[in-house]
Amino acid sequence: MRIEPESHRNSPAGSDREQQVLDRIEKARRRKPKVKAERITLAHGSGGKATQTLVEAVFLEAFRNELLEPLEDGAELPLEGHRLAFTTDSYVVSPLFFPGGDIGDLAVNGTVNDLAVTGATPRYLSAGFLIEEGFPLAELTRIVESMANAARAAGVQIATGDTKVVEKGKADGCYINTTGIGVVRSHGLGVAGVRPGDAVLVSGPIGDHGITVMLARGELDIDADVVSDTAPVHELVADLLAAVPEVRALRDATRGGVATILNEIARAAKVAVFVDEESVPVRTEVRGASELLGIDPLYVACEGRIVVVVPGERAEAALAAMRAHPQGEQAALIGRVGDDPPGLVLLNTAFGGTRIVDLLVGDPLPRIC
Amino acid sequence: MRIEPESHRNSPAGSDREQQVLDRIEKARRRKPKVKAERITLAHGSGGKATQTLVEAVFLEAFRNELLEPLEDGAELPLEGHRLAFTTDSYVVSPLFFPGGDIGDLAVNGTVNDLAVTGATPRYLSAGFLIEEGFPLAELTRIVESMANAARAAGVQIATGDTKVVEKGKADGCYINTTGIGVVRSHGLGVAGVRPGDAVLVSGPIGDHGITVMLARGELDIDADVVSDTAPVHELVADLLAAVPEVRALRDATRGGVATILNEIARAAKVAVFVDEESVPVRTEVRGASELLGIDPLYVACEGRIVVVVPGERAEAALAAMRAHPQGEQAALIGRVGDDPPGLVLLNTAFGGTRIVDLLVGDPLPRIC
Repeated sequence: MRIEPESHRNSPAGSDREQQVLDRIEKARRRKPKVKAERITLAHGSGGKATQTLVEAVFLEAFRNELLEPLEDGAELPLEGHRLAFTTDSYVVSPLFFPGGDIGDLAVNGTVNDLAVTGATPRYLSAGFLIEEGFPLAELTRIVESMANAARAAGVQIATGDTKVVEKGKADGCYINTTGIGVVRSHGLGVAGVRPGDAVLVSGPIGDHGITVMLARGELDIDADVVSDTAPVHELVADLLAAVPEVRALRDATRGGVATILNEIARAAKVAVFVDEESVPVRTEVRGASELLGIDPLYVACEGRIVVVVPGERAEAALAAMRAHPQGEQAALIGRVGDDPPGLVLLNTAFGGTRIVDLLVGDPLPRIC
Repeated sequence: MRIEPESHRNSPAGSDREQQVLDRIEKARRRKPKVKAERITLAHGSGGKATQTLVEAVFLEAFRNELLEPLEDGAELPLEGHRLAFTTDSYVVSPLFFPGGDIGDLAVNGTVNDLAVTGATPRYLSAGFLIEEGFPLAELTRIVESMANAARAAGVQIATGDTKVVEKGKADGCYINTTGIGVVRSHGLGVAGVRPGDAVLVSGPIGDHGITVMLARGELDIDADVVSDTAPVHELVADLLAAVPEVRALRDATRGGVATILNEIARAAKVAVFVDEESVPVRTEVRGASELLGIDPLYVACEGRIVVVVPGERAEAALAAMRAHPQGEQAALIGRVGDDPPGLVLLNTAFGGTRIVDLLVGDPLPRIC
């Protein structure tokens, strides 16, 4: 369960050991992606290193086209002179019900958020249910009502659907796919546009959702007063973009957490991302539970938090715009973008050291969304 | 496994017994839909009676909106002055590979076809993979390549995707959701527009896909030379609509087969649909295997066949247009639409009798698509 970062660096910058680590990482990253495993593992679904390799080596290789290539949370489609945002997600969270939400509102909010962070106004969702034989109708009804409420709250319509049932033992209660369509309003958002000198912000405390789900599994004897942050972020994003149109990139920090997003930014934009551990907002309960679980909160999924990159001089304006919205009250500046070492995320720890925050290697939190 | 139609009617039309049956069916259909079962059964995924009740009582009730209401294969979305077609399907076929295709091309063709039958030009697909831990990478690669080939053949782009992995025993190898976007070109297609006097056609032999999958499971010691009909029908549909713009309704006859489509038409348009058993094209091998399996081919899924309703006087033109396309060479006129008894499908059997072809009650062919 413990996350092992690829390297700890408490040695002074520029040391031989540090350079060796950087060289090794750089070499590994230059390789053509190839999945070494012969079978799919849970790590391939973690959003981390294994997922990235699988996507690049198998899916991108076969489907190669300019829409899929940017690997953003959603694609931007040219259609009849308009630009549509299009995104899909399957939800396999376990348990199906947890403090603060359930798979139903998660499936709506998650896809609404993937549309919102492409700078689009979310409009329509599809809903594909994959149900295990024997699943209680009362639970299905509760999930469906929760979806309907979340859709109303987010201002989207569930326009089309599908139901499949598989034999007992061939699923786990209920899985849901939602796929969303939005209308793109803003221009040029994307992690590849991030530049040295930019500021990195988060919209609120991180890790609430992931820790809530882990605790709801009841496998741990921890009783923390924490609820999922599942919520639609499209209004927060709209307010932010209205106040700061210069926003470079937006992402919602779900599977793999803030650390994964920052790595995607560092790699796509070929920049270094420096994060101050002390400025990352983490609730006391979440920090405590994370420590007991042996997980760094930076890797824990949120379902209603965004990571925002803006030009450095616009950081205060972006913070102010987010803090003016109820969902962004605890927004914080957590780091900055530099140029060296390119492709890496470096954390200044609370103890004064620096360490590389790499992509996850395993999957410490399977089926968190 | 044997299909039990709700009633056999070899008695002369207008008899007391017949009237009682019609009254009973009419009464049952007037009831507010309510799912009686406390747990989901395979029948809820059959596309038949249980699916219909579940969709109406649970999903429509919660999601109620004018887009979902028509319950067509896809929704028509107003967007920035254009009309988009939007449809979703999860694919859970077992086995994953079968003669003539696999879950990959099925997942592309099935969603392309759902777009095509709404009168839309298919443009973009999303692909959501739900993979069981331990699934062989070589099989996944084969499936993904098959999807890519099918997408190229159908002229659609796979624009966005998602991968989730669940623990061993929580899925069955690999499930795929595809959701599609198309641009609607034709006006007013829909089963509710069907009128007495219309003609009912199919584009080719029925049941090939379903029988192929059943035989591929190897549970039966039958060796029939039959392959899945999985194919994209958008070109066939485009040719048909160009030649006969008066087409009233189009559907692809997948889960639940032609019988289910005809029932949906009869109910939505409040018409009677009369089918001549002898004019329904069924391959000898499929008929033979169906008899051994105790299944009426009318209920067996196709994955590349369409049911077409046109005004009676345009039947010959529609047949000619379909027969001019390689996928419609064996198109046939199989029945006509009348006004009484409304809501029912009646089959003139090869033996000179008439029987009601109702919606499926159980699910004789689970996980066929």
